[in-house]
Amino acid sequence: RRSLGRSVICSRCISTLDSIFPKHENFANRHNGPSVEQRKKMLETLGVESIDDLINKTVPQQIRLDKDLDLQDSVCENEILDRLNLIAKQNRCDWRSFIGMGYYNCCVPRTIVRNMLENPGWSTPYTPYQPELAQGRLESLINYQTMVVDMTGLDIANASLLDEATAAAEAVSLCFRHNKRRKFYVDEKINPQALEVVRTRAGLIGIEIFVEKLERMDFSCRDFSGVLIQYPDTEGRVFDFSDVIEDAHTHGSLVACSTDLLALALIKSPGELGCDIALGSSQRFGVPLNYGGPHAAFFAVRNEFKRLMPGRMVGVTRDVHGKKVYRLALQTREQHIRRAKATSNICTAQALLANMSAMFAVHGPQGIKHLANRVHNAALLLAHGIHKAGHFLVHSNFFDTIMVHMTSGVHDIYRRSGEKKINLRIYNGGRIGVALDETVHEHDLDDLLYVFGCDQTAVRIAELAAELGGKLEGNLNDSPFKRETDYLTHPIFHKYRSETNIVRYMKKLENKDVSLVHSMIPLGSCTMKLNATAEMEPISWREFANIHPFVPMDQARGYEELLKELDRDLCEITGYDSICFQPNSGAQGEFTGLAAIKAYHKSIGQHQRSVCLIPTLCTRHTNPASAQMCGMKVVPVKVDKSGSVDVVDLQRLAHKYSDNLSAIMLTYPSTNGVFEEDIRETCDMIHDLGGQVYVDGANMNAQVGLCRPGDYGSDVSHLNLHKTFCIPHGGAGGPGMGPNWGEGSTWYPSLPTHPVVPPHGSILPHAKPTGVSAAPWGSACILPISWTYIKLMGPKGLKEASEIAILNANYMAQRLKGHYDILFTGKNGFVAHEFIIDTRGFEATSGVEAVDIAKRLQDYGFHAPTMSWPVTNTLMIEPTESEDKDELDRFCDALISIRNEIKEVEEGKVDRELNMLKLAPHTLETISADQWDRPYTRTQAAFPLPYLKPDAKMWPATGRIDDAYGDKNLVCTCPPMDDYH
Amino acid sequence: RRSLGRSVICSRCISTLDSIFPKHENFANRHNGPSVEQRKKMLETLGVESIDDLINKTVPQQIRLDKDLDLQDSVCENEILDRLNLIAKQNRCDWRSFIGMGYYNCCVPRTIVRNMLENPGWSTPYTPYQPELAQGRLESLINYQTMVVDMTGLDIANASLLDEATAAAEAVSLCFRHNKRRKFYVDEKINPQALEVVRTRAGLIGIEIFVEKLERMDFSCRDFSGVLIQYPDTEGRVFDFSDVIEDAHTHGSLVACSTDLLALALIKSPGELGCDIALGSSQRFGVPLNYGGPHAAFFAVRNEFKRLMPGRMVGVTRDVHGKKVYRLALQTREQHIRRAKATSNICTAQALLANMSAMFAVHGPQGIKHLANRVHNAALLLAHGIHKAGHFLVHSNFFDTIMVHMTSGVHDIYRRSGEKKINLRIYNGGRIGVALDETVHEHDLDDLLYVFGCDQTAVRIAELAAELGGKLEGNLNDSPFKRETDYLTHPIFHKYRSETNIVRYMKKLENKDVSLVHSMIPLGSCTMKLNATAEMEPISWREFANIHPFVPMDQARGYEELLKELDRDLCEITGYDSICFQPNSGAQGEFTGLAAIKAYHKSIGQHQRSVCLIPTLCTRHTNPASAQMCGMKVVPVKVDKSGSVDVVDLQRLAHKYSDNLSAIMLTYPSTNGVFEEDIRETCDMIHDLGGQVYVDGANMNAQVGLCRPGDYGSDVSHLNLHKTFCIPHGGAGGPGMGPNWGEGSTWYPSLPTHPVVPPHGSILPHAKPTGVSAAPWGSACILPISWTYIKLMGPKGLKEASEIAILNANYMAQRLKGHYDILFTGKNGFVAHEFIIDTRGFEATSGVEAVDIAKRLQDYGFHAPTMSWPVTNTLMIEPTESEDKDELDRFCDALISIRNEIKEVEEGKVDRELNMLKLAPHTLETISADQWDRPYTRTQAAFPLPYLKPDAKMWPATGRIDDAYGDKNLVCTCPPMDDYH
Repeated sequence: RRSLGRSVICSRCISTLDSIFPKHENFANRHNGPSVEQRKKMLETLGVESIDDLINKTVPQQIRLDKDLDLQDSVCENEILDRLNLIAKQNRCDWRSFIGMGYYNCCVPRTIVRNMLENPGWSTPYTPYQPELAQGRLESLINYQTMVVDMTGLDIANASLLDEATAAAEAVSLCFRHNKRRKFYVDEKINPQALEVVRTRAGLIGIEIFVEKLERMDFSCRDFSGVLIQYPDTEGRVFDFSDVIEDAHTHGSLVACSTDLLALALIKSPGELGCDIALGSSQRFGVPLNYGGPHAAFFAVRNEFKRLMPGRMVGVTRDVHGKKVYRLALQTREQHIRRAKATSNICTAQALLANMSAMFAVHGPQGIKHLANRVHNAALLLAHGIHKAGHFLVHSNFFDTIMVHMTSGVHDIYRRSGEKKINLRIYNGGRIGVALDETVHEHDLDDLLYVFGCDQTAVRIAELAAELGGKLEGNLNDSPFKRETDYLTHPIFHKYRSETNIVRYMKKLENKDVSLVHSMIPLGSCTMKLNATAEMEPISWREFANIHPFVPMDQARGYEELLKELDRDLCEITGYDSICFQPNSGAQGEFTGLAAIKAYHKSIGQHQRSVCLIPTLCTRHTNPASAQMCGMKVVPVKVDKSGSVDVVDLQRLAHKYSDNLSAIMLTYPSTNGVFEEDIRETCDMIHDLGGQVYVDGANMNAQVGLCRPGDYGSDVSHLNLHKTFCIPHGGAGGPGMGPNWGEGSTWYPSLPTHPVVPPHGSILPHAKPTGVSAAPWGSACILPISWTYIKLMGPKGLKEASEIAILNANYMAQRLKGHYDILFTGKNGFVAHEFIIDTRGFEATSGVEAVDIAKRLQDYGFHAPTMSWPVTNTLMIEPTESEDKDELDRFCDALISIRNEIKEVEEGKVDRELNMLKLAPHTLETISADQWDRPYTRTQAAFPLPYLKPDAKMWPATGRIDDAYGDKNLVCTCPPMDDYH
Repeated sequence: RRSLGRSVICSRCISTLDSIFPKHENFANRHNGPSVEQRKKMLETLGVESIDDLINKTVPQQIRLDKDLDLQDSVCENEILDRLNLIAKQNRCDWRSFIGMGYYNCCVPRTIVRNMLENPGWSTPYTPYQPELAQGRLESLINYQTMVVDMTGLDIANASLLDEATAAAEAVSLCFRHNKRRKFYVDEKINPQALEVVRTRAGLIGIEIFVEKLERMDFSCRDFSGVLIQYPDTEGRVFDFSDVIEDAHTHGSLVACSTDLLALALIKSPGELGCDIALGSSQRFGVPLNYGGPHAAFFAVRNEFKRLMPGRMVGVTRDVHGKKVYRLALQTREQHIRRAKATSNICTAQALLANMSAMFAVHGPQGIKHLANRVHNAALLLAHGIHKAGHFLVHSNFFDTIMVHMTSGVHDIYRRSGEKKINLRIYNGGRIGVALDETVHEHDLDDLLYVFGCDQTAVRIAELAAELGGKLEGNLNDSPFKRETDYLTHPIFHKYRSETNIVRYMKKLENKDVSLVHSMIPLGSCTMKLNATAEMEPISWREFANIHPFVPMDQARGYEELLKELDRDLCEITGYDSICFQPNSGAQGEFTGLAAIKAYHKSIGQHQRSVCLIPTLCTRHTNPASAQMCGMKVVPVKVDKSGSVDVVDLQRLAHKYSDNLSAIMLTYPSTNGVFEEDIRETCDMIHDLGGQVYVDGANMNAQVGLCRPGDYGSDVSHLNLHKTFCIPHGGAGGPGMGPNWGEGSTWYPSLPTHPVVPPHGSILPHAKPTGVSAAPWGSACILPISWTYIKLMGPKGLKEASEIAILNANYMAQRLKGHYDILFTGKNGFVAHEFIIDTRGFEATSGVEAVDIAKRLQDYGFHAPTMSWPVTNTLMIEPTESEDKDELDRFCDALISIRNEIKEVEEGKVDRELNMLKLAPHTLETISADQWDRPYTRTQAAFPLPYLKPDAKMWPATGRIDDAYGDKNLVCTCPPMDDYH
């Protein structure tokens, strides 16, 4: 309600006013952890005079940004939320969308929104690489997988992918991996955005896509790897495709089916029909429209393909006590193991959204069946009325989506739908689609009947139907499509029906997991900074959450304004000229950026450029995978002892491949935690050879306000908004967001756009249609988080955040020095925003490995830092700016205390196997057991330092987990009820 | 966005449509715990055929409601929230209010809203009568008390009262209790709503209020018990009242000061000035305006008055291990001990709101001082401009509120303020008030300057000030009023400055406390039912939260509509004709109702009627206290062995006092858990004798849809909305809401109204001004909770809730029979919605008392039922409808297992002192200690039943608490930091 503009008279007067009437609050003081006094003490410890002094010794002078960022001054949270509220109101959630195409209105249970989505206990945990501290969300994700397996009728499902379109592309890729054939059929009636992404992704790895009518598909030459069908299809039709399945299977082709979970409550599942793969969006299971995202996509396969399945899978295994427990299964398939051999770069999930859908399903099968029948009957009633009004229904078997061929008066329909504020799907040729959903009310049906010129109400149609025997024609329950098999039969989907029970279940799971509400999670390379409530609040506002991604642009002016401002701010922060918001994860950003580079080279006639140089040690694990996916040849570059790129090797390789050099992918500051001095020279050399520079934006959090990739020579980057710009990790990776952007207008032709929604004029002026995600702006609904963060911090606060991130890392490194070796430092002996402690030597001296330290840290109440990445058997620590000195000290105290425990083993005072490290973590069950037969005390095991208090300690829920056992005995659905604890 | 209206054609067609297109969901199935299958099993256990059968055997036929409640059919949560959203939008939060009078806009930290107000972990715990399971919120409340003590400069504070006005009335009452004088001075410049409540309350107990100018007060006759001053006063003036203090003290009168916490950051505290009592609202410390409530009021006194202080106090004591811990102090002052001797009926607090203010203060003194200076300087700038515009400032010393005497053009001001959508305070005689607050922005100042006809901007005024040396005239920091003493010096107000730390602190405290998110809290007489998220969500919508209570009615049309509907619905549910929403607690409702009865008798010339009959055993403890406060004579009525009112005694007393009989106060069904058969006859008899019947609405939750007080003969009741109608308990009582209402138009003249806001025409048509709370509609902002609950449940769901509450209670009683004696039952052997288990016999057989069972229940993960109420050394259990059979069984299993533990003592197998009951509860510290020397195992102590799992158990944070020690060594502020754990 208040304008933030200031009618400037002169800068002197403003500062006069400011001196009398200063800002309400400086949000940076709340975001950045250490107080002024703490900062002083930390600088003293480091022996530097000031933060400026430290930064001068850390970030190379030649790349330093010599100005303040040109961003709006920081604004307090009340004011910025008032302003964002005005922006949000420009999104017209008073319009009703019956567009469908994979996005449906749904009654999101408010208690799931509040207790999961809006609860930092669920939104801020990290990926469950420490399963002992993550049993809660792992259980929920296995519920998700079980739900998907049940609904699709297949054998095994993953814990979610990013969206339906990328899931479809992954299906294509899986088929190719299975039989190595380079042709692929796609039914012409799949959603256009999915087709677009499939085309983009297949094209880059040389798979030829044939869009065809089902009846014309011919598999007899045995050269098609598979076929992708949509069921019900994009026109709403439910149809029998058993002939195609049989034909495909006969000739060694696989069948993938894009489908709808709610429809599957009524119709035969893809598994029953014989499909090999099923995929789709689980949005309509309890997740808002979100203007396109984030939502979780599901992906399920037959057992024989489980090791080809992309993405994360939660599996059951046992812990050291033999208890059934959960953990991520088959991690050896992940990209950091496969690197250049990887075939997918998916390294995340939409965990928080998958958990919402899982908890929605926990309400039980009766509820879901009721919803499905209600939606279906609404569609039947409507169809009846439309038919009565004289229009032609294109398909007679449908679940919730009707396609109408207009006999007359299409423009009358448009007029009346506008009058009623109703969005319909418009096809070519006078055809109109209506997709109903569970939120539809009698009143909506009446309005839709009016729009289609039917002069009868829903009540009247029902009455007529009753007179004719009470049955509505076309009911799937009376058709051969009727589903006869049960689903959601596991007790977990029956136990927590009442809201009281659902809330307690969510709380019980939440309280098993370590998140940012408990303690720091110093994941090297994955900053776990504060996700402030003021940043998070807008994403559940109805004006952001309840907008269909394909509404006309004039109903999304709020999003448009937000995107424009965020575009401008991020360009200023990075030094780039243009930005794209479509990639919905960091890895998606990498892929999009590299695809853009490839397209650029093509556009200037340099088709041969396909070599991508990637340093070995210090590379993010998705880098080579993304390059692979773009059809690039990955050439590894050596890293020298200081952790920097080996300049000699780089020069050698760059010149060797100069004719074919497409790009170099660098991380800056390096994943080893160092600001390399010669980054600008490296970029120049690559440019001289005709290559392009891709700087991975993962470590942008150490650069904001200090230096800019666009300035020192990078051409394209992606940005992990869920890291640097405060989008929370969501408990298992996701929701992620990886916008990328390029320098200069040369990139424009290659930026992705969207086949359904024409791009915003100002954001993607010359884009050509190359989709990388299902929704035009990816996970649009979480962009307000980053927008708000930037506005709250202002240019000074953002810069300060980078400085404090560097200060915090150096303070910890300094405290740990002498106890542990710090692996890499810059030329002045300082690290960047993260650092590696070398634990490799302990194996020889004591048998202790990095994993033992990680598990023992759990006993100290802490989540372990990144383990064995980028260097095997080391720990990489990134404290972030949000943590204060007290917390850093507790973490250092824990590590130092563990070092002393190692010393006891080294000195032979303690057994090499029977010690607190090897037997860590210690569960409450162990500590409270009647028997105690260990060569150390319960107190030593559970409360080794005074800050650990019995009434506030976070306990690991299980003993150490046996990964190998679980992978050998793969179970990825809910175990029998007896195993619950 | 969707109308819920249905254009009815005929009921048959509707049911046809419903059969094809049924409701989206039946919320009652989520609210009510037991599933259909569970209900069947429970009925079998009870040996009844159906729920109807059970109800027929429980609720007397002659009072049964013979129709369905005439309420709107249930609506699903999405639809009802859509509708409420439309209603809410009629509240005009686009207007800015600078009205002041104890209510100020404030920047409520969003993270406190989300992690406290919106978090069921904070909103759903019960009053901390089991301190071992309540250390979190007790710590927060002691922070609140410490904050109040610091800011006011007094010695001891309570954990909050209901609002400033009732706190003022409590101050009057305290002075009277101290020196028994029946005259009291009130400064004419206190807020009018406080004056109104003081008049109402004092008048009823025969204290004469003299409203006077300070300089005319004369204490020399030593007949004034005290004086109430407001500082800064209602006109904004900061003034020196040391003469009055000296004069009052010289003559044995006390001085109470109503004050403003934010102003006290800059000006001398009441304590320093010599006041005996300080009180006021802590709303502006981080709590939204809420259209008047709920907020917490603070109350602080000098040490010598601590045992006269009303309300709850949190104090420090030690537990059995000697650890410093918190608990409610001096509970012996509470009403259930003092009964008819009680002088205040306050038995609750605004705990959740006090905790929000406490957490706001945890941000530290610098922040609060910054805010105070900012607000003050804004006022100085504005005053400067107003003065320049030619208007007269009535007072030269002010903090944030300016009173302007208009030299001309008052109507121009009205016009321009309307144009700018600004609400000002309008006094008589051309005077206008402006109260600024921390949310004020430069833009607001410019608009206000424009409104007052000043042609200069804030920037320009600042510039002019700078030219004159940079000082603004009237700065309190340059005045004798300047505060020289520190505040919030305790480390707790410095430790958690960053948002990361505040969030962790809130979570750490939350996780110490048992709430409804963990397990059932079967508090007899205090139903702890589900507080559904859909009900809770609207209270934090800006359209409900950001409205000043004194805005013109046309800016609160949303509230008006909501109140009208809730009025109508509650009248239908209770059978009454009219309702009043002003009382902001149950006890306030009692007081209001009895005052209405007294006024009614007066209005028909029966001044002598002042006897109030109240049954002894089965009475709520506030009943006699409320009657006392109304100046009534309390006459206790005996209770017979079956727990019912002794009809013979009642008849005897009613006739004995018939000439003076004013009222009888009954609870129905009785607090003993029985539907008395002859309630109607009792009512008739009282009426025949000219008395009135007051039925305490506490147990309305057993009656909704089954019988109605208005039908069986009650004249007036209050209703505990925070019980029956789903407002959560807020962790320590509060926010409460106790609307009351009367049958027939005779009550109208006595219903309370408000001196500032004219009543809604339709709600209080003939009301005369008799205020009982500060705000016209009490805690208006929480009324959407009850409104939503009623709409979600519909008539069928509401009735079902009553039935299931009765079913659940009877099921538990049945399961416990044979293990424990059930104290009272109805004529068919069934109980109502609650029941008492008799534990009195165990003391002789085993030394075990009810308190031991209560503490031992903590080891089983449960909060104890109500202890020793209404019968000493018993436990009263009320399961509520929201709990399902599994949870009831777990609770019964725990009690049965405890009974077996008692048996072991009885049989001499176990020592009478050294046993699990006497040593309960067992903390994690004890269980995990290296040493174990008890005659039972750790497992027996901590995991006595299989449902208790180490990874999900709720642990008591302390050992058993030593109440007596704390009361002897009273400490009610934060203890030294060393004691924290």
